[in-house]
Amino acid sequence: LKTTVSSPTQTVTISRDGPVTIIGERINPSGRKRLTASLKAGNMEVVRRDAVAQARAGASLLDVNAYVPGVGQAVLMQQVIRAVREVTDVPLCIDSHSPRVLKAALRECQGKPVLNSVNGKERSLAAVLPLVVEHRTAVIGMAMDDEGLPETAVQRLRTAARIVERAESLGIPRRDVIVDPVVLTARLDALAAREALKSIPLIVRELGVNVTLGASNLSHGLPHRTAINAAFVAIAIASGATCLIANPLDRQVRETIRASSLIVGRGEWTLHWIDWLCRSSER
Amino acid sequence: LKTTVSSPTQTVTISRDGPVTIIGERINPSGRKRLTASLKAGNMEVVRRDAVAQARAGASLLDVNAYVPGVGQAVLMQQVIRAVREVTDVPLCIDSHSPRVLKAALRECQGKPVLNSVNGKERSLAAVLPLVVEHRTAVIGMAMDDEGLPETAVQRLRTAARIVERAESLGIPRRDVIVDPVVLTARLDALAAREALKSIPLIVRELGVNVTLGASNLSHGLPHRTAINAAFVAIAIASGATCLIANPLDRQVRETIRASSLIVGRGEWTLHWIDWLCRSSER
Repeated sequence: LKTTVSSPTQTVTISRDGPVTIIGERINPSGRKRLTASLKAGNMEVVRRDAVAQARAGASLLDVNAYVPGVGQAVLMQQVIRAVREVTDVPLCIDSHSPRVLKAALRECQGKPVLNSVNGKERSLAAVLPLVVEHRTAVIGMAMDDEGLPETAVQRLRTAARIVERAESLGIPRRDVIVDPVVLTARLDALAAREALKSIPLIVRELGVNVTLGASNLSHGLPHRTAINAAFVAIAIASGATCLIANPLDRQVRETIRASSLIVGRGEWTLHWIDWLCRSSER
Repeated sequence: LKTTVSSPTQTVTISRDGPVTIIGERINPSGRKRLTASLKAGNMEVVRRDAVAQARAGASLLDVNAYVPGVGQAVLMQQVIRAVREVTDVPLCIDSHSPRVLKAALRECQGKPVLNSVNGKERSLAAVLPLVVEHRTAVIGMAMDDEGLPETAVQRLRTAARIVERAESLGIPRRDVIVDPVVLTARLDALAAREALKSIPLIVRELGVNVTLGASNLSHGLPHRTAINAAFVAIAIASGATCLIANPLDRQVRETIRASSLIVGRGEWTLHWIDWLCRSSER
């Protein structure tokens, strides 16, 4: 299945046919002191710079998260989206747990963004999916529910299937649901990555949908994160992920995403590797 | 299955249980002008340095290839092995297409080395497997035969199965055959990697043997090889390879091998990642 997202001037298709789509993760104040401070001060300079840099480095979508404790979320999210739209036309992935913030963000978005995210909890399904219907967006469905994060790959498939079925029952086409089988830090659960990765082929086979993962979650709190992130994106792509929420400004991660797509047969070496390197070196 | 190899003082077990085993690839004059020149001059200094550096960087075995056009192969191979054994006790992987050279090399080896390699061609099976029997070595079986390199994953499995059966018929235990599903450069065949990688789960399921791959072959002749090699080792490990012929002196490749082992659940994060980083930084 193909997921099409868009801004007023750009259309991006996420699918199994070409190289993996990069969703730039940098516009997220979690763990970023400088960005947090600038957002608190109402200064959008870092946001604008991150937006331009990620788009140049190969992000086809930009994730936008504006969660800063103690700051009005809905208004801040709108300010951040306006700042991003001033400098780039890349389609957006609106990242918030709060349906109220997603709703506010949608007022600032033209085209077809991605809502990040809904999950299998009844409260989330009931609040987020109607926004997807009303605004005809795509949505990331996180494979967790009222019981928490399922332990095994098969349980994650089942949770993902429930989200897809519920979406379809409301008239949301299955192609507009991107499943995230959820990887948390290896500090908390050493086998979390393994089960999430194992679930991807099951999800692809049973549901046919696009699959995403947060590429930097696994390494959270561990030393030498770049090496873990790079290994993880390669394995995620080999397992069947079609888009990754990742940092394209990290050279090792960016290169590994490109190379991995080609190794598993998504795209042509001469066309995509050599041309891409030539274009990279021109910058 | 577990493959045990050894030098007079060190034993290494290749298996699915712990982190992937690195077979250091550097002692190979192909594409290395300086090493080629020094071997031609009978100077073993580069060989000794490469042996020490690779063992320190985490190679559990050292591949030894001494093919220099115009130089007597058997004698040079013996000299190179003696030089390596002067500086390290790491077990060896004797790399030659020539049964005569393998035989000469075995005279210099104590313990249980790996012969790299036999393949499915009748001439190779008939010449190499008797050496494996006589010297009780392990052997790498390359999944190609008189018809060349099989195109599909299933065909590679069949070729590997024939090598394993033939070995068993001569009394070589199956655990001593390590299958190499063979990856050539992406310049020649863009899909070669994909079929080889796909064959690994089949080989593991049907034959139960250890699987190796040459980690630097795919990128041969392409720009920016490190990025391709690193992505490739991650995907090879995720596919089920248990040992890799790779360059541990390449930081990105070395780190990716470690991280990938942990991501797929071979080894423990706190034990292997954090301790390994601490030891690395002490050096």
